[in-house]
Amino acid sequence: MFKKILYPTDFSDVAAKALDYIKQLKEAGAQEVTILHVINQRIIDGLMRHAMLDRDILNWKEKAQEIARESLAEMSRDLENIGFTVKHIVRTGFPWREILDVEEIENPSLIVIGSHGRTNLGDMFLGSVSDRVIRKCRRPVMVIKRDMDD
Amino acid sequence: MFKKILYPTDFSDVAAKALDYIKQLKEAGAQEVTILHVINQRIIDGLMRHAMLDRDILNWKEKAQEIARESLAEMSRDLENIGFTVKHIVRTGFPWREILDVEEIENPSLIVIGSHGRTNLGDMFLGSVSDRVIRKCRRPVMVIKRDMDD
Repeated sequence: MFKKILYPTDFSDVAAKALDYIKQLKEAGAQEVTILHVINQRIIDGLMRHAMLDRDILNWKEKAQEIARESLAEMSRDLENIGFTVKHIVRTGFPWREILDVEEIENPSLIVIGSHGRTNLGDMFLGSVSDRVIRKCRRPVMVIKRDMDD
Repeated sequence: MFKKILYPTDFSDVAAKALDYIKQLKEAGAQEVTILHVINQRIIDGLMRHAMLDRDILNWKEKAQEIARESLAEMSRDLENIGFTVKHIVRTGFPWREILDVEEIENPSLIVIGSHGRTNLGDMFLGSVSDRVIRKCRRPVMVIKRDMDD
């Protein structure tokens, strides 16, 4: 029921909190975790609009991928140390679309995702990633929210 | 992390499926379950618009409450038999509002709720209950969806 978990992370505090819930689910049968980070196409589009050179954008993207891969590798070791089987994936695109695509491929038992809420304008876009995933995904989803006092 | 679970049910198949996930969470530390059923104010409003007599509406409401209480008592026994501490609540009102109010009072570790999805017009209203709860609740929420092949 909780065997294989898809865990999309944007490296935020609330995504880190979601990871604690995944660890706790081990007792209820969680065995495999697919960690996914999506480099947001909107940032790349933003760089383009600011007339950044194609070469510089490519450099930025490669750097971002490298950093993401290192972070995911570190998370993977942490989860492997407590007995999980882990796979990690870095993609570039619109996060909600990539998450749903990986769901389709991996067919997880459960998606565990952090939600940024809607407290201010900056958060609204981020909140909409989890909103869309919740609405469109096929599998059960656990949504971890930012604490009110965070 | 999963100690106290709030489980709103509309007695549908997908709500029943959510209950299976709660049982599985016992292994991860779930101990208490608050089962909540809300008699939908919209139905009562509908009866009123069809010029049903106040007395008959009151009768219908009492009957609905009685049936709900019996169903919740049965679910409670089922959960108690496998070691959960259970409380059950029947309310009348707008389901999402009552669910959020009970969340406020009970302060659960997790809400586990079924979602009807949006496959047709009839489902849209029901889907909107879980949508609103997910959006507005303060605690983590696990959303169980109808299987695509159900």
